[in-house]
Amino acid sequence: MINSLTKKQKDFINSQRIGRLATVDENGKPLVLPVCFALRGNIIYTPIDKKPKKVTAYNLRRLKNIYSNPNVSIVFDRYSEDWTRLYYIMVEGEASVIQEGEEYKHSLNSLVQKYDQYREMGLLSLGLPVIKIEPKKIICWGN
Amino acid sequence: MINSLTKKQKDFINSQRIGRLATVDENGKPLVLPVCFALRGNIIYTPIDKKPKKVTAYNLRRLKNIYSNPNVSIVFDRYSEDWTRLYYIMVEGEASVIQEGEEYKHSLNSLVQKYDQYREMGLLSLGLPVIKIEPKKIICWGN
Repeated sequence: MINSLTKKQKDFINSQRIGRLATVDENGKPLVLPVCFALRGNIIYTPIDKKPKKVTAYNLRRLKNIYSNPNVSIVFDRYSEDWTRLYYIMVEGEASVIQEGEEYKHSLNSLVQKYDQYREMGLLSLGLPVIKIEPKKIICWGN
Repeated sequence: MINSLTKKQKDFINSQRIGRLATVDENGKPLVLPVCFALRGNIIYTPIDKKPKKVTAYNLRRLKNIYSNPNVSIVFDRYSEDWTRLYYIMVEGEASVIQEGEEYKHSLNSLVQKYDQYREMGLLSLGLPVIKIEPKKIICWGN
């Protein structure tokens, strides 16, 4: 399936500390930002965390964008000065926002497991929203 | 001016080897990809280069997207396990495609100057299109 990550792709994505997430606003303008994330099975979770923001969580542009247009794209890549080693995995997906339930708790646990910083921040008890990305199309490039 | 890069922002961008560029297709779906680039003054140039592509230059999705929607976003960032050192500059811009003239030649020269790999690839004589990004809004985050 084109929307299912292979073991090798999952290993690469799990080796990455950040991805770059693109969302689109209601006027068709894209927004691209570096994001921390955790992969669970085939699903990517990226939290609205406690790093300082200029606005409250619910006014964040990435969330507003997702509410009006759930189409997102996230890329995980490796740069090398040896360009035969360049590599990326680009996932086109459908995003939603979760803030309660089993899946939400599991996503927070995965994030805390991956990032000590989230544990120190107390992510588990902050009640902040998590963006859930279901892959619809996966494009791989490079070696 | 909010659409003019400061000296400090230019220095950071110039220190980066890749940015992540988001474009949007006619159905509002974003595409985000790592790109090599050169900064000249306030303008960002990223070439369609000779790294292997699945389609010819003009059928590339990023170009098709720009032709139908010139709004793009590109992010330059620094990750650190010390999250007080996280940083990014996100540029929202208007993109166009250039393939001839003085500005085109200057952009290729800047790219070849920045990347030995482009020199070796013979970028100057390939006649390939270059995406030109004029910043409209600049957002900086972190220290």
